[in-house]
Amino acid sequence: MAESTNTEIDLSQYPHINKGLAGIVAFSSTKSFIDGEKGELIYAGYDIDTLAENASFEEVCFLLWNDRLPNQEELDGLNTKLQNNRELPEPVLNYIKSTSKNAEPMAVLRTAVSMLGDFHEVQTDDDKEFRLNQAISITAKIPTVIAAFDRARNGKNIVAPLDEKSTAYNFLYMLNDEEPGEKAEQTMNLCLILHAEHGMNASTFTNRAICSTESDMYSSVTGAIGALKGPLHGGANQQVMNMLMDIEEKDADPVEYVHGRLERKEKIMGFGHRVYKTMDPRARILRGMSKELSEETGHENLYEWSEAILKTMKDEKDIDPNVDFFSATVYYSMGIKPDLYTCIFAMSRVSGWTGHYIEQAENNRLVRPRAMYVGEKNKDWVPVENR
Amino acid sequence: MAESTNTEIDLSQYPHINKGLAGIVAFSSTKSFIDGEKGELIYAGYDIDTLAENASFEEVCFLLWNDRLPNQEELDGLNTKLQNNRELPEPVLNYIKSTSKNAEPMAVLRTAVSMLGDFHEVQTDDDKEFRLNQAISITAKIPTVIAAFDRARNGKNIVAPLDEKSTAYNFLYMLNDEEPGEKAEQTMNLCLILHAEHGMNASTFTNRAICSTESDMYSSVTGAIGALKGPLHGGANQQVMNMLMDIEEKDADPVEYVHGRLERKEKIMGFGHRVYKTMDPRARILRGMSKELSEETGHENLYEWSEAILKTMKDEKDIDPNVDFFSATVYYSMGIKPDLYTCIFAMSRVSGWTGHYIEQAENNRLVRPRAMYVGEKNKDWVPVENR
Ligand SMILES: CC(C)(COP(=O)(O)OP(=O)(O)OC[C@H]1O[C@@H](n2cnc3c(N)ncnc32)[C@H](O)[C@@H]1OP(=O)(O)O)[C@@H](O)C(=O)NCCC(=O)NCCS
Ligand SMILES: CC(C)(COP(=O)(O)OP(=O)(O)OC[C@H]1O[C@@H](n2cnc3c(N)ncnc32)[C@H](O)[C@@H]1OP(=O)(O)O)[C@@H](O)C(=O)NCCC(=O)NCCS
Repeated sequence: MAESTNTEIDLSQYPHINKGLAGIVAFSSTKSFIDGEKGELIYAGYDIDTLAENASFEEVCFLLWNDRLPNQEELDGLNTKLQNNRELPEPVLNYIKSTSKNAEPMAVLRTAVSMLGDFHEVQTDDDKEFRLNQAISITAKIPTVIAAFDRARNGKNIVAPLDEKSTAYNFLYMLNDEEPGEKAEQTMNLCLILHAEHGMNASTFTNRAICSTESDMYSSVTGAIGALKGPLHGGANQQVMNMLMDIEEKDADPVEYVHGRLERKEKIMGFGHRVYKTMDPRARILRGMSKELSEETGHENLYEWSEAILKTMKDEKDIDPNVDFFSATVYYSMGIKPDLYTCIFAMSRVSGWTGHYIEQAENNRLVRPRAMYVGEKNKDWVPVENR
Repeated sequence: MAESTNTEIDLSQYPHINKGLAGIVAFSSTKSFIDGEKGELIYAGYDIDTLAENASFEEVCFLLWNDRLPNQEELDGLNTKLQNNRELPEPVLNYIKSTSKNAEPMAVLRTAVSMLGDFHEVQTDDDKEFRLNQAISITAKIPTVIAAFDRARNGKNIVAPLDEKSTAYNFLYMLNDEEPGEKAEQTMNLCLILHAEHGMNASTFTNRAICSTESDMYSSVTGAIGALKGPLHGGANQQVMNMLMDIEEKDADPVEYVHGRLERKEKIMGFGHRVYKTMDPRARILRGMSKELSEETGHENLYEWSEAILKTMKDEKDIDPNVDFFSATVYYSMGIKPDLYTCIFAMSRVSGWTGHYIEQAENNRLVRPRAMYVGEKNKDWVPVENR
């Protein structure tokens, strides 16, 4: 340690201090690759466009947990396990029904996942199998939690999960108490694929830090949900919708609205990214979906404002949209309430979190960086009556 | 990005890849300073020995939240606020009473703190005041959660918190339903001081990563509890006691026992530290307490075994004990169940976590490092029937 006096800190001893750990490589991983210059995203070998075109969310889960795609038997097996794991233990359901109707859905999800840990899977001799079973169980139950709380807070009956159908279908079914159309299921499936994994984002990183103490998967996912909730991370999609609603309410011009915010040094949610220096490939795909769905559902205005905001941000700040910008209008077109958007992000990203948990657990070292002390030293005790 | 082909990764582009973020400086902070060579620990200006000798845990809380010691009026004000914030909302108490009696206390604490977020403080205009009030509220309620769950799982009446007395006194009172003696209160107070803060340990780091997304304090503390739970971090104190109990049950010789574990490449819990390369100053203080209390309560054997283990670890591996080694026997002498030890760590460390939350929130940047991708690229899609 170089700090030997109170005030002088030898910064040369700390070549790595990068605010927000920008550019610091924390782990090696087979889960995903981001080329921030080219706007490229790969999950375990497959380009995001390839997956968006061909995969089911369940195949992506298998991919992120096993680093390869499943064969038919494996996929059927995974689907069956996910379907059989959707129901919540009674105490978790009781909590969801009885907590404050004004609770934030992401906070309820955080508590519910934490509580699921009280009823966790029996530890098997095979660590890998045990972790996979936990990943499946948590992934299967998150949609049930979200739908149940949304219905409970609105005084509606809670819809039990189906023991068939895809994750996307079942979620929309539980949320609305009616069978979703094919288009809605496909859209939700695609959104789940696009949000599944994204390298060392704050929630995945949090999840790995927790795992590194050899803590359990419930602790890791609970912590990750807490991180995702923040508006600088997953919470941004809800804020994007709030912004569009605000423009509508105020009957404002979106370009002037953005100018106003930028002048007040406020951020425009859904823009900017630590890694991408060009258009996020997920934003590109979601942009097309947003256009199509907005037109189909008569919300062209929202899409047009989004494009106007995009152009203004590019012209004024040279900042591109991220995954959260167009996903907001996609969910809106599907009739989903804005404060559930981040929960849908979690419902998908849990596949990446648990994939990283498995990867970290198999090759672990405690995450324990340093802080640079910038405070005083050697202060003498002064009794309280003399302070 | 330098990764342009599938297999070649240009490591020179990643000068900072340090497993477990060892030696990486993640933040600057006024909260604590560790000199790992000298075995020195400072909280916001004051040496740990000075605080151990003079302070109350509540003074340390004030110090970690405000970077200075309180005057009499401020200390009285903080004590009153802590005392008035000890009661749990009904739904949290219901959860504690009704969950599985076999749930892990740390898991219950994680869920209870998360659930407290549903009833969080009203946001005030003054961000600093709001955060301080949340820190006080969470710090005040954690002891109530721990004591209530321990009594509930043992079929005992839950003891309502006192609206007077110190944190240490009130906790022991709620846990045992009887007034603690002066010595017990002092010991607990000292343990709370020693565990309050310790730089960028895994749980504090997790807590700051969550805060960096602009997520709320309940999310941060919940995530931190999940990280502390792991046996490589706070979970170690419980494992130390398990080891001593195992030696007792097997009527084993502690030196041979340690040799056996080391030969099987198993870790000895309560030893080793990322930062200290000498005796942890907290272990030094706890060692004295352990000796005294073990003698007073007729558990000399446990203390003697601890010393034998310490000597063996020093001789064989040149590894010193950390904070968790002697705290185990201290708590044991106070009649506290081993699976509550890590909860007591949390009850104290929450002061550091929330201090770091306040510090991070006041000078924030999103924590978002990178991962080095070591997987494949450009894989072609193969339909499931052909896999
Ligand atoms: C994602 C984000 C946190 C990345 O942060 P970062 O890598 O730390 O980037 P910085 O905050 O250092 O931003 C660099 C510059 O761009 C500006 N900027 C970044 N995102 C901006 C936004 N959304 N609106 C306006 N300005 C923005 C910053 O103000 C900063 O300008 P300055 O250098 O003049 O101070 C940031 O872009 C952001 O807050 N975006 C909005 C929230 C969001 O959409 N999050 C979801 C991410 S998937
Ligand atoms: C605290 C701890 C995680 C620090 O980890 P770290 O900085 O990553 O240190 P490493 O795991 O790289 O340890 C370095 C070497 O010391 C050995 N070592 C460290 N702690 C050890 C222990 N408690 N028992 C036996 N060997 C130990 C390691 O096996 C390693 O040996 P190697 O180089 O031959 O592989 C580690 O010491 C540990 O696991 N201790 C036991 C758990 C504990 O008490 N945690 C509470 C911390 S307050």
